[in-house]
Amino acid sequence: MAGQTQSSVHMTPIARTYAFEELELGQTASREHVITAADIEAFADVCHDHNPVHMDAAYAAATIFKERVAHGMLSAGIMSGLFGEDLPGPGAIYVAQSLRFKAPVKIGDRLTARCEVISKMPGKNLVVFKTECRVGEKVVVEGEATLLVASKAKVSADSAANQ
Amino acid sequence: MAGQTQSSVHMTPIARTYAFEELELGQTASREHVITAADIEAFADVCHDHNPVHMDAAYAAATIFKERVAHGMLSAGIMSGLFGEDLPGPGAIYVAQSLRFKAPVKIGDRLTARCEVISKMPGKNLVVFKTECRVGEKVVVEGEATLLVASKAKVSADSAANQ
Repeated sequence: MAGQTQSSVHMTPIARTYAFEELELGQTASREHVITAADIEAFADVCHDHNPVHMDAAYAAATIFKERVAHGMLSAGIMSGLFGEDLPGPGAIYVAQSLRFKAPVKIGDRLTARCEVISKMPGKNLVVFKTECRVGEKVVVEGEATLLVASKAKVSADSAANQ
Repeated sequence: MAGQTQSSVHMTPIARTYAFEELELGQTASREHVITAADIEAFADVCHDHNPVHMDAAYAAATIFKERVAHGMLSAGIMSGLFGEDLPGPGAIYVAQSLRFKAPVKIGDRLTARCEVISKMPGKNLVVFKTECRVGEKVVVEGEATLLVASKAKVSADSAANQ
């Protein structure tokens, strides 16, 4: 993180687990990360994708991107970190995610990942989020996510069990 | 990789870049990786998701998963590595991906990521793949991907430029 990371949860700034009943339509969370060459190399190693457009500046210079670009799934992974750490936080279960890759992310770009609650299905405890990664004003990845979020009684019981 | 990785491209075993015209309906590629605790920790660091269900065995023991689980996006990232390295390989542009997370992936699980060409849109050079990650016979992540794949003339020119 080291000065490159800013996390913020709109409405409630304290990291915690949100229960289904506590999530409101329009509620958002966001975080920012500056993408480094080391990030791209670490992602390439762990996901086994050493495509030269990510790894090799000379190769990338001859492509439409002109320089090395980050893996699309790196932005998606940073987006998913919002769910895991901030909103809803630990305990929520990732059910689905759609991703549309709109523009490249390059070394030094400051990526802003943002999610917003857009619908709730009370019978199923499912919450749908609009998800978006931007670099400046440009949307680089957009989509929707569905998470299964425990009810308040369950979250309270789990918190007690994990203390 | 070190003995934990097997990559295979059905129909043509040599790593290269496939042009749009060379991709056939039903063509597949797959690879296998055993998911380690180190993989989960590296992914957590690069994507900034230290949710305790991934990181903390004692916490995870009290969840429905009973033990630490990999980030869903780690499987998705390994899936996307197939596109970047094997089929279509370097030069293809990731346009979209849908993901449905069906079951957890745990430490020691051997993940098989597989893609299959299911449709081609010649006017737009878009190729749609069915994507699937399995552990044994269980599907853990499924979805569809759309990639923009250059035509043969363009791939040949790029190969020459990058030699």
